[in-house]
Amino acid sequence: MKIDICFSPALYPYYADNNTERIVIVVDIFRATTTMCAALKNGAKSIIPVASIEEAQAYKEKGYLVGAERNVKRCDFADFGNSPFDYTTEKVAEKDIVFTTTNGTQAIEAANDAHALVIGAFSNISAIVDFCVAAQKDVLVLCAGWNNRFNIEDTLYAGAVAKRLVDKEYTYASDAVEIALSMWRDAAPDLRDYINHTEHIKRLVANNLQDSVEYCLTNDTVPLVPIYDKNTKKITIA
Amino acid sequence: MKIDICFSPALYPYYADNNTERIVIVVDIFRATTTMCAALKNGAKSIIPVASIEEAQAYKEKGYLVGAERNVKRCDFADFGNSPFDYTTEKVAEKDIVFTTTNGTQAIEAANDAHALVIGAFSNISAIVDFCVAAQKDVLVLCAGWNNRFNIEDTLYAGAVAKRLVDKEYTYASDAVEIALSMWRDAAPDLRDYINHTEHIKRLVANNLQDSVEYCLTNDTVPLVPIYDKNTKKITIA
Repeated sequence: MKIDICFSPALYPYYADNNTERIVIVVDIFRATTTMCAALKNGAKSIIPVASIEEAQAYKEKGYLVGAERNVKRCDFADFGNSPFDYTTEKVAEKDIVFTTTNGTQAIEAANDAHALVIGAFSNISAIVDFCVAAQKDVLVLCAGWNNRFNIEDTLYAGAVAKRLVDKEYTYASDAVEIALSMWRDAAPDLRDYINHTEHIKRLVANNLQDSVEYCLTNDTVPLVPIYDKNTKKITIA
Repeated sequence: MKIDICFSPALYPYYADNNTERIVIVVDIFRATTTMCAALKNGAKSIIPVASIEEAQAYKEKGYLVGAERNVKRCDFADFGNSPFDYTTEKVAEKDIVFTTTNGTQAIEAANDAHALVIGAFSNISAIVDFCVAAQKDVLVLCAGWNNRFNIEDTLYAGAVAKRLVDKEYTYASDAVEIALSMWRDAAPDLRDYINHTEHIKRLVANNLQDSVEYCLTNDTVPLVPIYDKNTKKITIA
């Protein structure tokens, strides 16, 4: 099996593969995919990802609970922003949650042709890797990035996944994997310090939103694999 | 002044900047931009970059000398391939050379709205950096990549340029620059060894085209700045 990594939703078409059974792992560490994992762990029935604010507003008018964020801030009309701490059991249990964010939900839309599209974060990294290894399928990690630009935190997660899969006999032939693995080797001894050099930490701190950083970088608090269903367009637990 | 780096022509729109006077350095180390520098050093009057094979063929029919490559191989109809060693003084002096390659000329087309678009390679790195510093303008290095995918060798060049500009008081705020600088620090002590891990070395070796690798990684054999003129659509010496 092969592992590859795509640094931006805008590059996804160039990381196409003839293997139609490939698993695509979408990741947006700060914070969309971490938050989706948290909501499902706290009992949400499903996440309905939508790319645009207009779609989210239409759902809101129909009575759905809506999480909506742009440029790190919660949208005024929404019930939740993009912090994993917003989605408490009390608020989300048994509910379908509509969700739109600056980058994460766009990445899901970009890759919605994938045979299997799963939601990855450090919080569920072991569950995701076990899922891939059990399926014995090729894997692509799709980094959400920031407005289609490369970012470090999603690439580090991709490197961490690649390291575990390479240890399980996965192979790679792309420069993106080579570099993500190298970054992960550099960062793993002190992930928080490495992350402090990123663009997005500055953005979170400037908006006083750094409270979830530690949570977003912690492994295995959510032993679940969220998976996107192309037919229902919902994310539920696999 | 600011330095930024874009890893793929497909991402160029997301690295836009309000500074309309920014200098864009297009780089395709293996081998398009290295080859363009060599041709100009050897006396070519101009390079006319074209993105498509069809345009190159049309020029050929009009009597132009044409360099054309796809997937590392010379196109049958062309006078030259994409090796810097093809463009000898004897063949190119005083000539306009039409040029199309898999990645490099596409990158030029992507960025042809830039205020100043220059052609960078390790072979002219000092001349390029001096040009930027003298102009006191923001800089974006646009990596040609491979079929719009991230590649290591162009990113290393971008890191090398960024290092020199940061030493000249340039600032940066992007994760792409952070990573390119880190890669350059890792690679600089033994660039050839680092490059041996890349996708493209394997492609060149598989096609017995590795003869120019050493040349493509050597600094300052060409003390020139090739610049693209939007009006004439030609690259000449600045």
